[in-house]
Amino acid sequence: MEILKQRILTQGKNLGHGILKVDGFINHQVDPHLMDECGRELARRFAHIGATKVLTAEISGIAPALLTAFHLGVPIVYARKHKPITMPDQVFLTLSPSHTKGNIVEMIVSPEYLRSQEKVLIIDDFLASGQTIQGLVRLAQAAGATVVGIGTVIEKTFEGGRAVLSDLQIPIESLATIADMSDGKIVFAA
Amino acid sequence: MEILKQRILTQGKNLGHGILKVDGFINHQVDPHLMDECGRELARRFAHIGATKVLTAEISGIAPALLTAFHLGVPIVYARKHKPITMPDQVFLTLSPSHTKGNIVEMIVSPEYLRSQEKVLIIDDFLASGQTIQGLVRLAQAAGATVVGIGTVIEKTFEGGRAVLSDLQIPIESLATIADMSDGKIVFAA
Repeated sequence: MEILKQRILTQGKNLGHGILKVDGFINHQVDPHLMDECGRELARRFAHIGATKVLTAEISGIAPALLTAFHLGVPIVYARKHKPITMPDQVFLTLSPSHTKGNIVEMIVSPEYLRSQEKVLIIDDFLASGQTIQGLVRLAQAAGATVVGIGTVIEKTFEGGRAVLSDLQIPIESLATIADMSDGKIVFAA
Repeated sequence: MEILKQRILTQGKNLGHGILKVDGFINHQVDPHLMDECGRELARRFAHIGATKVLTAEISGIAPALLTAFHLGVPIVYARKHKPITMPDQVFLTLSPSHTKGNIVEMIVSPEYLRSQEKVLIIDDFLASGQTIQGLVRLAQAAGATVVGIGTVIEKTFEGGRAVLSDLQIPIESLATIADMSDGKIVFAA
């Protein structure tokens, strides 16, 4: 997606160690029009898979997932890191390592909103190591739901997430795919 | 906003102690079309105040704030509870009691995205005690920015937040105002 790639090149920053700073337009400050374009494009790419729900992880998955769900016309559920008092005692819970913080976080979804007949499209801001998305897959599977697609805004191929998820044999789409961030570069895949 | 009130009456649940469960359409599962309508209406009500940025708090403020910002055509910034590695060392930080969890949370905004000339519209899902919104006001003030309005999806008048915020002498708008939740009821203000 060309406007996204241009934005990454002009406003993104390679902080080293594979860390891409995009908090000026994706995950702290958010450009709602860019997110709308991302959501529209992800919805277009997944229009054929019959998703009944979009699933994401708080926090930075919410914006792209919300707008993808908007353009697909389905609800979105975001997995919580802490169980709020409004949630029932019996929940779906999985543990996921946070690759940016080095700790383990909980991911929690209420069984009220993830059911066995659902066809789930997982959306997140980044596909890096794939561990957050694997956690979302486990939550969907715990509910007996079927994961029918995975879409992310930015993929870093050199962290191997796509290979980790390939066993699922479902479509995986990213709007901007970065192949190389060594030596301060930001190089998109051809 | 009538469609929101009807949704609260049909799908919301009064859990007692002033707790309103709306996690089927606002803050766990989210109805993106309802959020779009809420964002459109908040943008309409604040169209005249010249906001240059929408400010909210993660997590459940993100959806309504994103769509309000979309319809206003301005960026949104969400205050983080944990400082990510992409954020500079020098930040705006305030402490806020979490009324649903009973603990104190940090609210952090990068100075990169909140500047002294900004006119800030604060958007959140709930106006209850007003403490989260007061935290956002402090962050904006720390940046030297001007808070020009406060908008929320649901207000619970019996928790007193509006009175707490009235010293600011700025417009405060809520799309559904609940006056009474005693005895299992959900009663909207006239």
